Amino acid sequence: MDRILPFTDEHHQFREMARKFFETEVKPFHEEWEKNHIVPKSVWRKAGEYGLLCPDVPEEYGGAGGDFLYNVIVVEESSRVGNSGLFMSLHSDIIAPYITSFGTDEQKKKWLPRAISGETILAIAMTEPGAGSDLKSIRTNAVDKGDHFIVNGQKTFISNGQLADLIITAVKHDNGTISLLLIEEGMKGFERGRNLDKIGLKAQDTSELYFNDVKVPKENLLGKQGQGFRYLMQKLAQERLILGVAAVEATRLVHNLTLQYVKERRAFGQKIGSFQNTKFKMAEMATELEMAQVFTDKVLIEHMKGVNTTSEAAMVKWYTTEMQKRHTDECLQFFGGYGYMMEYPIARAYIDARIQTIYAGTTEIMKEIIGRSLGL
Amino acid sequence: MDRILPFTDEHHQFREMARKFFETEVKPFHEEWEKNHIVPKSVWRKAGEYGLLCPDVPEEYGGAGGDFLYNVIVVEESSRVGNSGLFMSLHSDIIAPYITSFGTDEQKKKWLPRAISGETILAIAMTEPGAGSDLKSIRTNAVDKGDHFIVNGQKTFISNGQLADLIITAVKHDNGTISLLLIEEGMKGFERGRNLDKIGLKAQDTSELYFNDVKVPKENLLGKQGQGFRYLMQKLAQERLILGVAAVEATRLVHNLTLQYVKERRAFGQKIGSFQNTKFKMAEMATELEMAQVFTDKVLIEHMKGVNTTSEAAMVKWYTTEMQKRHTDECLQFFGGYGYMMEYPIARAYIDARIQTIYAGTTEIMKEIIGRSLGL
Amino acid sequence: MDRILPFTDEHHQFREMARKFFETEVKPFHEEWEKNHIVPKSVWRKAGEYGLLCPDVPEEYGGAGGDFLYNVIVVEESSRVGNSGLFMSLHSDIIAPYITSFGTDEQKKKWLPRAISGETILAIAMTEPGAGSDLKSIRTNAVDKGDHFIVNGQKTFISNGQLADLIITAVKHDNGTISLLLIEEGMKGFERGRNLDKIGLKAQDTSELYFNDVKVPKENLLGKQGQGFRYLMQKLAQERLILGVAAVEATRLVHNLTLQYVKERRAFGQKIGSFQNTKFKMAEMATELEMAQVFTDKVLIEHMKGVNTTSEAAMVKWYTTEMQKRHTDECLQFFGGYGYMMEYPIARAYIDARIQTIYAGTTEIMKEIIGRSLGL
Amino acid sequence: MDRILPFTDEHHQFREMARKFFETEVKPFHEEWEKNHIVPKSVWRKAGEYGLLCPDVPEEYGGAGGDFLYNVIVVEESSRVGNSGLFMSLHSDIIAPYITSFGTDEQKKKWLPRAISGETILAIAMTEPGAGSDLKSIRTNAVDKGDHFIVNGQKTFISNGQLADLIITAVKHDNGTISLLLIEEGMKGFERGRNLDKIGLKAQDTSELYFNDVKVPKENLLGKQGQGFRYLMQKLAQERLILGVAAVEATRLVHNLTLQYVKERRAFGQKIGSFQNTKFKMAEMATELEMAQVFTDKVLIEHMKGVNTTSEAAMVKWYTTEMQKRHTDECLQFFGGYGYMMEYPIARAYIDARIQTIYAGTTEIMKEIIGRSLGL
Repeated sequence: MDRILPFTDEHHQFREMARKFFETEVKPFHEEWEKNHIVPKSVWRKAGEYGLLCPDVPEEYGGAGGDFLYNVIVVEESSRVGNSGLFMSLHSDIIAPYITSFGTDEQKKKWLPRAISGETILAIAMTEPGAGSDLKSIRTNAVDKGDHFIVNGQKTFISNGQLADLIITAVKHDNGTISLLLIEEGMKGFERGRNLDKIGLKAQDTSELYFNDVKVPKENLLGKQGQGFRYLMQKLAQERLILGVAAVEATRLVHNLTLQYVKERRAFGQKIGSFQNTKFKMAEMATELEMAQVFTDKVLIEHMKGVNTTSEAAMVKWYTTEMQKRHTDECLQFFGGYGYMMEYPIARAYIDARIQTIYAGTTEIMKEIIGRSLGL
Repeated sequence: MDRILPFTDEHHQFREMARKFFETEVKPFHEEWEKNHIVPKSVWRKAGEYGLLCPDVPEEYGGAGGDFLYNVIVVEESSRVGNSGLFMSLHSDIIAPYITSFGTDEQKKKWLPRAISGETILAIAMTEPGAGSDLKSIRTNAVDKGDHFIVNGQKTFISNGQLADLIITAVKHDNGTISLLLIEEGMKGFERGRNLDKIGLKAQDTSELYFNDVKVPKENLLGKQGQGFRYLMQKLAQERLILGVAAVEATRLVHNLTLQYVKERRAFGQKIGSFQNTKFKMAEMATELEMAQVFTDKVLIEHMKGVNTTSEAAMVKWYTTEMQKRHTDECLQFFGGYGYMMEYPIARAYIDARIQTIYAGTTEIMKEIIGRSLGL
Repeated sequence: MDRILPFTDEHHQFREMARKFFETEVKPFHEEWEKNHIVPKSVWRKAGEYGLLCPDVPEEYGGAGGDFLYNVIVVEESSRVGNSGLFMSLHSDIIAPYITSFGTDEQKKKWLPRAISGETILAIAMTEPGAGSDLKSIRTNAVDKGDHFIVNGQKTFISNGQLADLIITAVKHDNGTISLLLIEEGMKGFERGRNLDKIGLKAQDTSELYFNDVKVPKENLLGKQGQGFRYLMQKLAQERLILGVAAVEATRLVHNLTLQYVKERRAFGQKIGSFQNTKFKMAEMATELEMAQVFTDKVLIEHMKGVNTTSEAAMVKWYTTEMQKRHTDECLQFFGGYGYMMEYPIARAYIDARIQTIYAGTTEIMKEIIGRSLGL
Repeated sequence: MDRILPFTDEHHQFREMARKFFETEVKPFHEEWEKNHIVPKSVWRKAGEYGLLCPDVPEEYGGAGGDFLYNVIVVEESSRVGNSGLFMSLHSDIIAPYITSFGTDEQKKKWLPRAISGETILAIAMTEPGAGSDLKSIRTNAVDKGDHFIVNGQKTFISNGQLADLIITAVKHDNGTISLLLIEEGMKGFERGRNLDKIGLKAQDTSELYFNDVKVPKENLLGKQGQGFRYLMQKLAQERLILGVAAVEATRLVHNLTLQYVKERRAFGQKIGSFQNTKFKMAEMATELEMAQVFTDKVLIEHMKGVNTTSEAAMVKWYTTEMQKRHTDECLQFFGGYGYMMEYPIARAYIDARIQTIYAGTTEIMKEIIGRSLGL
């Protein structure tokens, strides 16, 4: 069936370009990046040259001024090749929007062009060792010193943590309110911990960050002081939706790999795909995938209209990521022993999928949000 | 969220009328009908007066000439009050279309106005005791005698089996091909068995039908001789889709009943709805329901455009009916002992739901169809 | 595999007698009882004549003085024929033990012989309209008047509610403590409500009970005043275990019916049982059934040793009853349309199964109990 | 609850010794082995010194002549520390029994003492690139040359593939029958492929093996020529049972890790373990674990009695390994982001668990076997 998203010819052309980028600049190098546990900065610049970073930033700040569908396209093409190293979506769809929405004109002029070119890689630092998804209990502290803040504390599980040049950091003031600060590579007292060893996402850097008496000038305050919690809440729907877009496409890749395999591979004298169990499971998964696609698209449409989709985005987030995890697991089973071998893409898909139901709000938190919207 | 179906003001007005019908002419009498195991013929005529039967039949045959959304609206309003006795959808959306699509002008002129008024109630007779969902193995036999057929055989599980005045009957010829015959109440040798006692659908008549040397004139042949199998296949997508529409709305009713209950009922000092288990389950179900709604609507749009939706309609059929069954079961659990008492609507919803995954093609057959469309 | 329960030759002989009783005195009449929504008192006396009621009551009170395995055998043989009308297990395994454990010598001498003969049918009245499984919030009130109590209140969902001659009734005193009173048929002010219409258990009477200024003499106090809550807690493990025994055997019956059906019934040119989907589902269910059997037997052994099995009995209760419900549903699906017809035993098994996860402590309460035993 | 296995004091003492071995010789080194993708040969000798290898080999061949419970104990203690590198169970419980059961006296005298001491590490080579679990379609060919065979072919997914000194190799003769040959390290033409990179089991070597005109003397034929298929079938029940033992214990470890974590870790102002969702999931998992334990023990008892447990061992295999996979996944979720970090034992448990439902016969094959035993 056709998508319900209103893609135009321009979108399709953009998709072709994005596809070329991921096929030629990402896919052939991913295995090497996995060994390095990081991607090179050069591929970020390459992405910038292709015009794939922050495609929705207004033209006045050097962007293409596209609608959010351009962002969606980049995410889909990224997942389509199984990319899990180059985390552009975090940069373009999750972090840059904070600057666009809450930044001063100076901040936008300074940072957005560099984000678009890939010169500056963005990260966001919310999670802390003792706080997890519970934003209200963060402890990284920012003391107001007139024209600057002094920041002390520690963050963890920061994606792009080794690469990032600019980190939007959630800090708490003594009065308990939260602000967002733009903390820059090179600021004294800001240090990165080691690149964490994860179950999957082997090509993506994830780190702890340390702040020891970091002096952050007030011009690096994002938005108003003490409004950080509200800002974070406001951006979560888009973050969760874009993760849903990625999850749907990652699931589609896994289905395609598996369909191809079960149509070729034989066991006990017949093709694996001709066993009723295979047929039924693939049929169930295809159904769920199509449903998830249409539903995600529908919520995207509402989101682009400016409708509050807090509850619907939470539905998209938990369902699509649980689907990705479950389908990847079921599909792997059809590969038998080969599915367990890292040289098979299904194996990487499996280890990459496991984080999806955890970050950007766990499945459990999504259900709390939806429950609340039901009046429970 | 808004529906993606293109409902107009006229549709909304029609919905109000339909709602009035079901609220005033159906809901108050349903319990009585359940005791009788049948609805009165008078309510069919009433439905005809309201203009709710076969709303999509062209004006030339006495219909309103509406699009298929009118049919959808009637089905939704029917499920909205928990109606499971007055099986209008079978009549309007599943059987009348055979006449509209394959009937001669005479047949249409004769039968469609009566179907629209409710004077003639329709049924379709495919299933046989030994054949189940396997159309190819039916045995009811029609011998060509020149200007008529002689029909012998037996059908079972025929909805509207006691009420129906005209029954589209699938018969097999000696050459193994299948035709559809319009068999009328009163034809000699045509008899109805007892009204079958079912787990649920207590207000709906379901019967065996017997054909002993029934003489059926050739003008009662629907379409071309021997083309019955193809005709039946052609209409299955719409049948399955409309069942999906009903399943989605029936599920929505159950959610609403349950939300209301868990917000009021207390246990162990707190509202049932405030338990995390309740919240999480309701959140999961709400997610699936919203997804199913959008997906069903999308497939309806494609169907109305004339796109072949064999595989997608099968997805809708199995998913929504399994959802209805599963959600009704999970919701009943929150009612505790009350859920098991027939005076609670959730109890009727439970016993009614169980047939959904079986008729009009079991879940297993739907998965076979989807699997085939995946090339498996 | 052999059972791990230490059945002796005497147990096997007893089982044969029990089997004879259920095959000849119960099975042929069950359908009639379903129509009556009650069983005749005469079958209770018959059961008494066969020695099947309260087989574990000590000889001094007219019992056979058997171990609890005799009770287990009766329950298994009852479920084996699909009996859901004659609720002997409630009488023998759940209620009589209160008298045996907490009754005075007079009470035992008076009531146990009659319970054993079937002359007196027992019920227990805990649940109230506003309280459900939450014993602490019952409102039926007993005011101490020196040599008697005056009881006012209402109970609901009382099994054997129409038939019972003696009802152990949980009442609350003004100080908030709970006592158990033996309330007898014929006491002034004690009335039964109508026989409730349920989803299933059609041959079993379930009622509301009303107490209006019922004068209950102190010799009808069971155990010590105010200790009722503790007594009830003490007996719950056995109640839950015996329900597990019934659930396992009811599931086994459903498996057997289904295996027989899928080995005979053909669809699309082959036996239903030869489809991989059928094979896999039956294999999954057989596995769970065997596991549930061994586990239930093991907990029974511990229970008979006098070990506290609160947590393990809760495991047995929720798992076996959820299994029964789930398996019955899955098995019914293989019967297609026939499964929905009340004349097929699978249909009755389906409607009977739904109460199992609710009464005697819902699945949710069982999980709370287990969670607590895990220190959560 | 007590185990139903008849452990004696001697078994308990043996368990203490085994525990000491795994705590001191395995656990502290496992992380290093994971980096090396292999364990050192020295730890095998150490295991031999502790008397933990092949404890059930008769005394006449240098063994301790214990019953199979000794083997069970070693497997349990191995899983208890999360060991997945040192694959002793393969050696002791799966491969050595071939020699004990089918070997000549010479073969036993030559190989069993070395297997017991750890001097000779055993492997079994069945799986081939094109054949998977389908033994009948192996292609590794053995041509009978009078006093020796010439073997050509290739095997894959061979556990202990780098370490093994003696490999029981399934070969096919030109007449289509299968024999088992003892192929030794150092035989000309026998080569090992690279150590395969897997999702988990990082400390365990798994390899392809190549046979190019390997000359295998007839004294290295195990059992009778052409009887290999029958021998393999005969040993599968024990292989599957012992995998079940490991799966149960691995699941228990994961439960313990998780219970400890959710009792300590706080989120949103309360302990994770106090959320109802956590409590319910842990309760469900505890129930399944206890059931799986009792059932596995029961089948072990039957197996030790010599009863044919083909179907029951298949039940144990699929259920316990699917349980391990499912529980490990659910438990990981409670750890949030930490669960995805390789430094947390739950992460290793997760990646290790995924192979369990695949090797030694997939879940699908187990269900086929059980289905067959049901007459389907």
